[in-house]
Amino acid sequence: MSEEESTVHLSESHTEMTEMLLPDDTNALGRALGGVVLHWMDICGAISAMRFANKQCVTASMDHVDFIAPIDVGEIAVINAYAFNTGETSVDVKVDVHSEDPRTGEKQETTTSFLTFVAIDDDGNPATVPEVACKTEAEKELRKEAVEKRQAELESIIERMTNDY
Amino acid sequence: MSEEESTVHLSESHTEMTEMLLPDDTNALGRALGGVVLHWMDICGAISAMRFANKQCVTASMDHVDFIAPIDVGEIAVINAYAFNTGETSVDVKVDVHSEDPRTGEKQETTTSFLTFVAIDDDGNPATVPEVACKTEAEKELRKEAVEKRQAELESIIERMTNDY
Amino acid sequence: MSEEESTVHLSESHTEMTEMLLPDDTNALGRALGGVVLHWMDICGAISAMRFANKQCVTASMDHVDFIAPIDVGEIAVINAYAFNTGETSVDVKVDVHSEDPRTGEKQETTTSFLTFVAIDDDGNPATVPEVACKTEAEKELRKEAVEKRQAELESIIERMTNDY
Amino acid sequence: MSEEESTVHLSESHTEMTEMLLPDDTNALGRALGGVVLHWMDICGAISAMRFANKQCVTASMDHVDFIAPIDVGEIAVINAYAFNTGETSVDVKVDVHSEDPRTGEKQETTTSFLTFVAIDDDGNPATVPEVACKTEAEKELRKEAVEKRQAELESIIERMTNDY
Amino acid sequence: MSEEESTVHLSESHTEMTEMLLPDDTNALGRALGGVVLHWMDICGAISAMRFANKQCVTASMDHVDFIAPIDVGEIAVINAYAFNTGETSVDVKVDVHSEDPRTGEKQETTTSFLTFVAIDDDGNPATVPEVACKTEAEKELRKEAVEKRQAELESIIERMTNDY
Amino acid sequence: MSEEESTVHLSESHTEMTEMLLPDDTNALGRALGGVVLHWMDICGAISAMRFANKQCVTASMDHVDFIAPIDVGEIAVINAYAFNTGETSVDVKVDVHSEDPRTGEKQETTTSFLTFVAIDDDGNPATVPEVACKTEAEKELRKEAVEKRQAELESIIERMTNDY
Ligand SMILES: CC(C)(COP(=O)(O)OP(=O)(O)OC[C@H]1O[C@@H](n2cnc3c(N)ncnc32)[C@H](O)[C@@H]1OP(=O)(O)O)[C@@H](O)C(=O)NCCC(=O)NCCS
Ligand SMILES: CC(C)(COP(=O)(O)OP(=O)(O)OC[C@H]1O[C@@H](n2cnc3c(N)ncnc32)[C@H](O)[C@@H]1OP(=O)(O)O)[C@@H](O)C(=O)NCCC(=O)NCCS
Ligand SMILES: CC(C)(COP(=O)(O)OP(=O)(O)OC[C@H]1O[C@@H](n2cnc3c(N)ncnc32)[C@H](O)[C@@H]1OP(=O)(O)O)[C@@H](O)C(=O)NCCC(=O)NCCS
Ligand SMILES: CC(C)(COP(=O)(O)OP(=O)(O)OC[C@H]1O[C@@H](n2cnc3c(N)ncnc32)[C@H](O)[C@@H]1OP(=O)(O)O)[C@@H](O)C(=O)NCCC(=O)NCCS
Repeated sequence: MSEEESTVHLSESHTEMTEMLLPDDTNALGRALGGVVLHWMDICGAISAMRFANKQCVTASMDHVDFIAPIDVGEIAVINAYAFNTGETSVDVKVDVHSEDPRTGEKQETTTSFLTFVAIDDDGNPATVPEVACKTEAEKELRKEAVEKRQAELESIIERMTNDY
Repeated sequence: MSEEESTVHLSESHTEMTEMLLPDDTNALGRALGGVVLHWMDICGAISAMRFANKQCVTASMDHVDFIAPIDVGEIAVINAYAFNTGETSVDVKVDVHSEDPRTGEKQETTTSFLTFVAIDDDGNPATVPEVACKTEAEKELRKEAVEKRQAELESIIERMTNDY
Repeated sequence: MSEEESTVHLSESHTEMTEMLLPDDTNALGRALGGVVLHWMDICGAISAMRFANKQCVTASMDHVDFIAPIDVGEIAVINAYAFNTGETSVDVKVDVHSEDPRTGEKQETTTSFLTFVAIDDDGNPATVPEVACKTEAEKELRKEAVEKRQAELESIIERMTNDY
Repeated sequence: MSEEESTVHLSESHTEMTEMLLPDDTNALGRALGGVVLHWMDICGAISAMRFANKQCVTASMDHVDFIAPIDVGEIAVINAYAFNTGETSVDVKVDVHSEDPRTGEKQETTTSFLTFVAIDDDGNPATVPEVACKTEAEKELRKEAVEKRQAELESIIERMTNDY
Repeated sequence: MSEEESTVHLSESHTEMTEMLLPDDTNALGRALGGVVLHWMDICGAISAMRFANKQCVTASMDHVDFIAPIDVGEIAVINAYAFNTGETSVDVKVDVHSEDPRTGEKQETTTSFLTFVAIDDDGNPATVPEVACKTEAEKELRKEAVEKRQAELESIIERMTNDY
Repeated sequence: MSEEESTVHLSESHTEMTEMLLPDDTNALGRALGGVVLHWMDICGAISAMRFANKQCVTASMDHVDFIAPIDVGEIAVINAYAFNTGETSVDVKVDVHSEDPRTGEKQETTTSFLTFVAIDDDGNPATVPEVACKTEAEKELRKEAVEKRQAELESIIERMTNDY
């Protein structure tokens, strides 16, 4: 495979999902169930990984998730994902969620996390994925942001957890 | 109201929804039910209208819809919408749908249509909406495209229909 | 094929769906999402076309839809469809929707539209459909009503649209 | 209340629901889950009871249900219900289900059962319901059929059960 | 087959499902739709029968169901099932439902019924099932309770029904 | 508050959910979507936290999740949760998922994670929760297992992550 064939631009994996928060997505307080947000993050991340790898992908892992602010019924949830790193058969994807109040336009960060997907061939075995190419400055910036934020998250978890008991 | 307050940029209404076609979205041939695609078009259009008007909006009408190509189970559907025209209380939104095969990256146009939403105040009555401002060339182009395509669609329907019986 | 085999009575395609409007079918005002109604119209129309053609059918197009009145959560939606015209491989279906308030029995027209379905054989290609036979006066009346209403709708759209810009 | 006000015609309660059997409605054999059919029977029966009583109704009981024949994915399920008997605050409804193969038009009986609904006023208490009026021969026949079939079902259950252990 | 192979312990079939009552599961009074509870009972019973028979199972029948108390939106529903009797190819399962108010911990019985499932082999034909083994006192008690309660239910229905008209 | 009132037994929070994996829960390979499993884990954990706190609870965070083995359509997923630790207003819950093949009875571990829920009072503010009481040996064991496994998971993540770039 030539280099051309074995790399894919980060921006080709960019995926945006927009959802309206419906009553079944909420608890008795009328706020988003965490699991509904996790489900959207996984689907958005999986589409991003499949667009990147041009293969079916399965979720291997999801990093620690902190829900910073609630989303209320009737609000809009926006989920954004892009692939920023790969292994031999795995793709790391950064997924951000924010909410929007349609009456004010106000936006609020909900959560960010990092998921790892594994590409699967037709026999159900892990399949090789291309590498991430960052040609533009914007792509380089997004990649750097993902790597650094993931590292910072990990450090903050270590600190929190090791103090916890 | 000053002009500043009473206009909103076309681009602020832009909305992108990305969906994976699941088994319940398909008929016995494994292809998207038309109604599932219509439902997505309505939700995407409604979010676009609400982002534009900063008010709750209800669907007043949908133009003629032609389904040009099928979407298969496992494929990705991408729905894009933007507001391009307004009345006193109504917002016209152009909605495009295309499908993507995640294994090849191939994209195929599914359909385009035009929906009209009416903004509703807290008492349930039609409420005034801002006008569309097109500051950039890109915005002007999008607006022109929508107006011309809607006109062309109408003419094509007239021609088809008047020959039909 | 004898004439007997190649025609099917209009009344055999008649399909009635009754649905309760649940919270997830509504927007933040507690009113039916337009897309939910469109989805029901498509499924009801598709069943009508399949009953008529005795083949799997896909949605080729939907005419302009006007939503005349809202449906509230807890109300009942009734969708009725029948096939009134055919081409070589396509079936035209009229679909009406009205709502009912279960506490008063009051009925309200929601919308009417016309969908075209194409019959598909096992290889996924368009397949020949029978012609519509109208033996009874009632069937002839229903057919006439559909053809005339579709024509009138088209004219009203032409008038509205050509005045619009 | 005059007699006019305190009776409602059996035929006003008649309710028909038509559903397409989707993948999520089936087990790993591609056949309808019993619970999906029970759910449809309850909703169809509840709409019938509410149309009859012009009040919100809750399910008090469902008679023994025998599933006579399977429904396959892609087939159509038709559910019919009518009110045939009342108490002070309760409405007895007969519900029939049959399936249709859209490719052959063949129909097959799935099950029949009898549900009792209780009308509820705004404070959540049981509320008086009108009596069933059977003016036409067809209505009288439907009422007789329901009463006799329910009786016959009960006898058959008694016979089966008392032999069972 | 040795006795070891042809019997399965009652306790191996025990199945517990816990569900949160979401808005779409309720009527306009915010109370559980009977059909939602019936659907859960069928799935829980089917899993119990499949765990017992180690085969795919379909619902053959459901005994009379009385809904004793409502479940409100936001409450928790707990469904418990176990197999207590078998025929050649059928498995009888007892299913209990109770609700829990998460704010008080208060529990309320909703309903109990008995479902019969038939085991199906890969060709879609009924398949032999093992017999129920009750080794412990607790298992013997559960079996006795199911047989006696089913008998008592039947007698109470006979009494109620024969007085009804 | 006396000690009696301010502690709740770990075992009272135990929650078991059993689910059948339906087609809409799977990707194009017929395997569970990660997001579906995450959604179940969140609901099961939330019920566990609410049973413990007797208050409405929202998801504050979820620890790193590794998906060890796939779940296929038609298989059964079993989710178990219990509360093992508390802060002033937060409850830590351990959630385990395993799958079962109904034809063989074979069980396979899917994933384990730890979620933190925050109890919310009627004004939407964090509310005090009781402490975990472990009276029996089994309860003490479960608590110890959760604390140690969480610690071990964290260490393994630190090791993996710090080697990753
Ligand atoms: C849309 C609706 C609010 C309009 O109410 P109305 O009493 O006709 O209001 P008005 O005559 O004052 O018209 C208000 C605006 O709606 C527009 N409008 C009304 N019907 C329309 C239609 N079928 N198509 C496009 N625009 C329409 C009018 O042109 C007017 O626009 P303008 O203010 O920009 O000039 C009303 O018909 C309704 O509630 N329909 C149901 C909407 C709904 O619930 N849809 C979802 C599924 S049923
Ligand atoms: C509908 C479809 C099968 C037509 O295929 P095609 O290659 O255009 O077929 P043909 O040109 O042979 O036309 C077949 C029939 O369809 C009719 N047709 C095609 N496009 C149509 C449209 N937009 N509106 C109405 N009828 C249409 C033709 O008039 C013709 O009818 P006739 O045989 O009665 O004269 C094809 O466009 C398709 O698969 N569309 C997607 C359908 C779908 O999946 N819908 C769900 C959501 S995407
Ligand atoms: C049905 C319900 C309202 C009856 O309440 P109740 O306090 O027993 O009321 P009453 O004793 O005054 O009886 C009211 C009517 O219900 C009837 N009824 C009560 N239980 C019944 C049962 N299991 N089967 C049939 N009818 C029943 C009574 O015969 C009486 O009918 P009548 O007025 O026509 O003579 C109550 O049991 C209930 O709320 N059950 C739950 C209903 C529900 O939510 N179902 C959905 C899923 S849980
Ligand atoms: C969770 C939430 C209520 C905390 O609010 P807050 O203003 O940070 O509250 P406080 O600082 O008083 O902390 C309250 C408790 O939450 C805990 N907490 C806050 N954020 C947390 C996190 N990311 N992970 C774990 N625990 C967290 C605190 O440690 C504290 O626990 P303690 O009382 O046991 O010591 C708030 O962040 C929120 O509403 N998040 C969204 C929750 C939600 O809707 N989830 C579903 C999908 S978005």
